[in-house]
Amino acid sequence: MMKQDRENKIRADLMVTGDYVLTLNYEKKVLEKGALAITGDSIIAVDKASVLKEKIEAREILDASGCLVMPGLINLHTHGAMTCFRGLADDLPHQEWLHEHIFPAEAHHLSEETVYWGTMLAIVEMIKSGTTTFCDGYFYEDGAARAVAGSRIRAVVAQGVIDFPAPGVPDPKINVKAAEAFVFRWQGKSPHLIPSIFCHSPYTCSPETLTRTKEVCREHGILFQIHLAETMNEVEEIQKRYGRRPVEHLRALGLLDAETLCHHAVWVTNEEIELLKQNGVGVSHNPESNMKLASGVAPVPEMLASGIKLGLGTDGCASNNNLDMFQEMDTAAKLHKVHWRDPTLCSAVQVVAMASTGGASALGMGGILGSLESGKKADIITIDLNKPHLTPMYEPCSHLVYAARGADVRDVIIDGRMVMRQRQLLDIDEQEVMGKVREIAAAIR
Amino acid sequence: MMKQDRENKIRADLMVTGDYVLTLNYEKKVLEKGALAITGDSIIAVDKASVLKEKIEAREILDASGCLVMPGLINLHTHGAMTCFRGLADDLPHQEWLHEHIFPAEAHHLSEETVYWGTMLAIVEMIKSGTTTFCDGYFYEDGAARAVAGSRIRAVVAQGVIDFPAPGVPDPKINVKAAEAFVFRWQGKSPHLIPSIFCHSPYTCSPETLTRTKEVCREHGILFQIHLAETMNEVEEIQKRYGRRPVEHLRALGLLDAETLCHHAVWVTNEEIELLKQNGVGVSHNPESNMKLASGVAPVPEMLASGIKLGLGTDGCASNNNLDMFQEMDTAAKLHKVHWRDPTLCSAVQVVAMASTGGASALGMGGILGSLESGKKADIITIDLNKPHLTPMYEPCSHLVYAARGADVRDVIIDGRMVMRQRQLLDIDEQEVMGKVREIAAAIR
Repeated sequence: MMKQDRENKIRADLMVTGDYVLTLNYEKKVLEKGALAITGDSIIAVDKASVLKEKIEAREILDASGCLVMPGLINLHTHGAMTCFRGLADDLPHQEWLHEHIFPAEAHHLSEETVYWGTMLAIVEMIKSGTTTFCDGYFYEDGAARAVAGSRIRAVVAQGVIDFPAPGVPDPKINVKAAEAFVFRWQGKSPHLIPSIFCHSPYTCSPETLTRTKEVCREHGILFQIHLAETMNEVEEIQKRYGRRPVEHLRALGLLDAETLCHHAVWVTNEEIELLKQNGVGVSHNPESNMKLASGVAPVPEMLASGIKLGLGTDGCASNNNLDMFQEMDTAAKLHKVHWRDPTLCSAVQVVAMASTGGASALGMGGILGSLESGKKADIITIDLNKPHLTPMYEPCSHLVYAARGADVRDVIIDGRMVMRQRQLLDIDEQEVMGKVREIAAAIR
Repeated sequence: MMKQDRENKIRADLMVTGDYVLTLNYEKKVLEKGALAITGDSIIAVDKASVLKEKIEAREILDASGCLVMPGLINLHTHGAMTCFRGLADDLPHQEWLHEHIFPAEAHHLSEETVYWGTMLAIVEMIKSGTTTFCDGYFYEDGAARAVAGSRIRAVVAQGVIDFPAPGVPDPKINVKAAEAFVFRWQGKSPHLIPSIFCHSPYTCSPETLTRTKEVCREHGILFQIHLAETMNEVEEIQKRYGRRPVEHLRALGLLDAETLCHHAVWVTNEEIELLKQNGVGVSHNPESNMKLASGVAPVPEMLASGIKLGLGTDGCASNNNLDMFQEMDTAAKLHKVHWRDPTLCSAVQVVAMASTGGASALGMGGILGSLESGKKADIITIDLNKPHLTPMYEPCSHLVYAARGADVRDVIIDGRMVMRQRQLLDIDEQEVMGKVREIAAAIR
């Protein structure tokens, strides 16, 4: 009888069971005593544990009792290798920070090697704080791509383009070509590495550079990224040069479509939000960076109301200074409440959606990432709820946003494979990575 | 020879050595490879480890290699037992939150027993996130006092006074008497428990209640606490009732002196800041609570410039929802930068001072707490720097504010005694405390 039962069951590679399974599916279903089954890199079923265990026989079980199980978070905007500059220069006037500290450090200390190790450190930090997909852009991005390809994290990895001599690309005349070469080198190399190109901004890239880059992106079917409307100065500068606000400038150049991702969008009008929405453009909100650099507060309530593809990002470690998406969620939820003077804005549920399904949509990966549903990639994290600051538990999303932090993440699964178990990374030598970045920092200091 | 050396050395109970000792003394001295020596409940010396080891022979050594050693943090404003309501009701309009959720939960579920366990949970959470002194105010405060007396944390513990039927004090006519009785019961009972009285606010306490309470405080030489100018509504209400703004109202009643501590002070003018300063009044800044409840942004840059006694607090868990002072420091530093649009405001150094020496001064304990100096109480924490998100290390205060979190605290010493070693609490059964609060929450739910 028992044997019969076993034989009739569907086989799976892994079953994860937990006190709560936060699916983040369309109905935002939370399963108490839930479970999910994984075969290969994909989720094949999500249900109550009792139901799933009747139907499915898994080769391995991850018992996450006392934990909440949820989709891995998506960090929609970072410059991973800037971990090397974490805490190098804070609390300074913006121009002094950028021109006397960050740019010189980048000019003197970036190389493919330092970008590799800096990105490795970012990957370690992100996995340990529950991020399973990140969207990166920087110089010497081959270093970042090597780090991603050699680890198990999922990432969009973009070579930077700027109309100035840049680290690794001293001649700006070939900046777009260099980026295209990067795409050639990495496209199709690894299933969890998605190449992209990142134009620094409309004030550091000419209309020609922007349109040529977008052409290359269209040819290769890849994401075009840009910092957009981050500061009021930028808006004024673009208006002065082109007679239009930044979003309108991009629209006029034909750059707004579903494969464009704008970072920051702090100083955008309702009309510009509507433009982004109509064209299916993705937006990353980066509240901690915008706060620390005093850039301003993005109109996120309006963006949420518009239904725009909106995700959350930490930005690089020079302007945050960590990559903890839980803290970023907390800040996002609280900042808009006080800024727009309404405690109902940016609810915990909305903010968790930004950090998961919202980010997935903005990357054009809404069909495979962001929620725990049959058919989606098995990118899953567990949160250990048996902690004083997570006790008691009334509402999962409230805890994730207002009480939990990255250090509460216990296990991480990417593409169906365990990459962290009980906070131990399984594939990366964390001490080696920290040691290498300390050496880089010693040279910078 | 060796014996001779040993005999000439000063004896100490405990020596703590670490990669960095952040003294937070007047010169803000940071000692690399530093150490401090403790005898009884006090620090007897702070210096380079090599120097101290020559002079002092300690019975025990806490080797905090790879760690930063600093004063325990001071949480200047909380309602500890509100851990029971953590995440019970978020993202709601303020009146609905207070009148339909928090007040009813307090009315039905508070008792000396629930306040005891709720405060115990707060103590566990605070020790585990590096707070060694907290300033509390709530109802059934005997429960909180029992929790403090039975654990090793240092606390100012205040019975609440309000002109309405309150939990534990159904007849408001005896609210001040009940608070005085609380002070009688607890004054002098425990060296690390300091009783106080907390008038809820100028809009819920009549001028008579406020002045009678302050008289009682003066008689007993204890701290008078009050929520002040937290919301714009409060300011309008007080102006309507008394023709004065809240701080002026307190001044007119003769309540402003060095033994008064005001919480929030969000809506205060420069003149009011000057009044608080002139009268030596302490102020707690609670940015996360002010953000989550959409109360507003306190004029902290002006307060810092005025030299007011300014500390940092988390507020209770219904409006934050954790008690992590590291996160509170981060938020304080970032909020004012973006709000006042200046990235140089509220520097990491200033914010760390608020959470230590600032809080100590506001409590009238600047002489014994807040910094690592010979003669001060040995309230000390170590931060494990061997973490990805704390790598590399350029500047200690930057790390503490912008990158570290409560979970990075490794060891905690209060009054010269270890209370947490390698994240294990030595005196409190953490699982029992969490279990009890889960039972309370089950009844609330």
